[in-house]
Amino acid sequence: MTKITSLVTGGAGFIGSHVVKHCLALGHEVIVLDDLSGGFEDHIPAGAVFVQGSVSDENLVTSLFEEYRFDYVYHLAAYAAEGLSHFIRRFNYNNNLIGSINLINESIKHKVKCFVFTSSIAVYGAGQLPMREEMTPMPEDPYGVSKYAVELDLKAAHEMFGLNYVVFRPHNVYGENQNIGDKYRNVIGIFMNQIMQQQPLTIFGDGEQTRAFSYIDDVAIPITNSVNIPAAYNQVFNIGADKPYTVNELVKVVGDCFGVTPDVKHLQARNEVMHAYSDHTKAHRVFGEGSGVNLLDGIKRMAAWAAKVGARKSKEFGNIEIYEKLPQGWEKKPQPETIPA
Amino acid sequence: MTKITSLVTGGAGFIGSHVVKHCLALGHEVIVLDDLSGGFEDHIPAGAVFVQGSVSDENLVTSLFEEYRFDYVYHLAAYAAEGLSHFIRRFNYNNNLIGSINLINESIKHKVKCFVFTSSIAVYGAGQLPMREEMTPMPEDPYGVSKYAVELDLKAAHEMFGLNYVVFRPHNVYGENQNIGDKYRNVIGIFMNQIMQQQPLTIFGDGEQTRAFSYIDDVAIPITNSVNIPAAYNQVFNIGADKPYTVNELVKVVGDCFGVTPDVKHLQARNEVMHAYSDHTKAHRVFGEGSGVNLLDGIKRMAAWAAKVGARKSKEFGNIEIYEKLPQGWEKKPQPETIPA
Ligand SMILES: NC(=O)c1ccc[n+]([C@@H]2O[C@H](COP(=O)([O-])OP(=O)(O)OC[C@H]3O[C@@H](n4cnc5c(N)ncnc54)[C@H](O)[C@@H]3O)[C@@H](O)[C@H]2O)c1
Ligand SMILES: NC(=O)c1ccc[n+]([C@@H]2O[C@H](COP(=O)([O-])OP(=O)(O)OC[C@H]3O[C@@H](n4cnc5c(N)ncnc54)[C@H](O)[C@@H]3O)[C@@H](O)[C@H]2O)c1
Repeated sequence: MTKITSLVTGGAGFIGSHVVKHCLALGHEVIVLDDLSGGFEDHIPAGAVFVQGSVSDENLVTSLFEEYRFDYVYHLAAYAAEGLSHFIRRFNYNNNLIGSINLINESIKHKVKCFVFTSSIAVYGAGQLPMREEMTPMPEDPYGVSKYAVELDLKAAHEMFGLNYVVFRPHNVYGENQNIGDKYRNVIGIFMNQIMQQQPLTIFGDGEQTRAFSYIDDVAIPITNSVNIPAAYNQVFNIGADKPYTVNELVKVVGDCFGVTPDVKHLQARNEVMHAYSDHTKAHRVFGEGSGVNLLDGIKRMAAWAAKVGARKSKEFGNIEIYEKLPQGWEKKPQPETIPA
Repeated sequence: MTKITSLVTGGAGFIGSHVVKHCLALGHEVIVLDDLSGGFEDHIPAGAVFVQGSVSDENLVTSLFEEYRFDYVYHLAAYAAEGLSHFIRRFNYNNNLIGSINLINESIKHKVKCFVFTSSIAVYGAGQLPMREEMTPMPEDPYGVSKYAVELDLKAAHEMFGLNYVVFRPHNVYGENQNIGDKYRNVIGIFMNQIMQQQPLTIFGDGEQTRAFSYIDDVAIPITNSVNIPAAYNQVFNIGADKPYTVNELVKVVGDCFGVTPDVKHLQARNEVMHAYSDHTKAHRVFGEGSGVNLLDGIKRMAAWAAKVGARKSKEFGNIEIYEKLPQGWEKKPQPETIPA
């Protein structure tokens, strides 16, 4: 029997590195394509072939498909800073949409058996709760728009060319290997990074916004397995934890795991969805129940890992396109009028 | 009083050239940005400043906004070959989405007063009829997806930055200045071009698909006036004719206008929406009733113009990305497997 060959884009990233690990466990030959803009080479599990480069590099993508003739594509590469996406529109669409289209084109041409895509609950916008797959998406920021456009394009590619896909809409995932040094996203990682540097935890607004923080295993395992589950094909799945917590509750849990009572600094509220949680009935039906790791246990595991790797210096995003209304703490330039050429 | 300055992208194109004409009549200073990929320099009305270049050229777009400080942006530049968009996905999103984002970015930065965007009924997909603005779009091809993504991005830009917009979803427009030499789109233009070359008229499928063909004045005049109508701001409008005709009926009307009974060649049906017509109640309420030009009168006017300018040689689209399933008559290469590098 010939080996199954899988491409995992973003495989040096948080969710991607876990997907790579599970793919290797299934016996796949795994090629990782990652530009290391948000991932780390040492997070890529041993046994995978690493190619450093961008999904937006059309020629590179074409040559990889020629060389490896992938059976499956797991497309996780993206810059997932939802709140920042208002201010980096062009970058967002180039990276998250055009990059995806390069992969869809090649997957059509090379008759890839299944294209697995990590979309986001950002596609729903501020709709009714809980978010359900049969609701019509209405994304409200460029990140969500780019994810939804890719979902729609995949559907069109399926109808026209028979390309099979599985779309996942994960919900605020956390766990080992998360980038804790990105000040624009991943609230749990940000908190851990701040605690380890004895800084106050920064919260946008009053901290009463809620999210159903989801442990990585509940997301990466179904993503990986989906290619072997025919009932998952050409379907969209919410995926992650059911129970929402406020950011204030989260502060407490994270503090407890580090044995501290953290100081908190409230920043001006930013333009974001106040409450978010999803219905996961469909995912449970097709993929089974989750790992059962609750918030406290999951945060404990992540905290143990974070304590081991230590704090990371937060990088500034180098290419902000619009400075107006940039949330507090995100401004790079003191004078917003100094717009780079 | 200082002069109103307007940017019209795609101003060398069909609808764009009419919008330029009406803007000049309103006293605007008009800058046309067009790459002439589908338009013609001699269609640009005298009095407008013409800049040849692409909306996807970020630096050019930035410098134009710096130089002219536009009051209004009418963004019509796009490649509107809906059926072809499945086969030119990357080009479609680069041209129609990234190009739009460059303009939205600069419009935010420079506080443009209103951004007028020509979307398309392609955003609706094969939904219920008539198409109404309050229906939730569900585009089914990359062209429609890119248009809908721009609509959503404009809405997000309005919410976050206060950028005002007007979105139009025109319906199969025809009239003087239409590109009749593009074999991938504009069925009326294609028919006229074929008649003038004594070729049979080509129809995908049985010709019983229906469209509400719309005369240019019913579209270009409201588009132009919208910036002066506060009730239009941050709204979406269907625009065009109410009455649908079959393509077979259209053949008869076009033939009559040229005094011929055309031969017809049926090609294999392609993947397209079978019936389409929109409700225009909202547009009529805000912009008033239309010109009252019916199909026969409109086609007569366009035929008179077409007879004067003569047939155009149809160009092949140079950069097809996927050859599989390309509709009959659109194949450039005899062997689909010969994919360009
Ligand atoms: N973490 C979450 O809560 C969450 C929620 C919903 C959706 N998602 C989606 O899941 C996917 C993975 O997210 P993550 O949390 O693991 O983020 P991550 O930043 O840890 O991983 C993304 C990886 O993609 C890489 N990458 C980014 N742009 C690239 C490009 N153009 N070419 C090649 N590689 C590129 C980065 O270097 C990084 O390694 C993303 O698509 C994200 O949008 C994540
Ligand atoms: N004609 C219709 O029936 C119809 C229906 C719905 C929507 N629309 C939309 O209306 C707009 C105008 O369409 P049209 O029918 O006049 O087509 P057109 O091809 O005659 O006009 C489009 C113009 O844009 C220019 N252009 C294309 N890409 C460009 C780029 N990247 N940079 C600069 N210029 C570029 C072309 O050269 C052309 O002059 C388009 O946005 C189209 O999607 C048209």
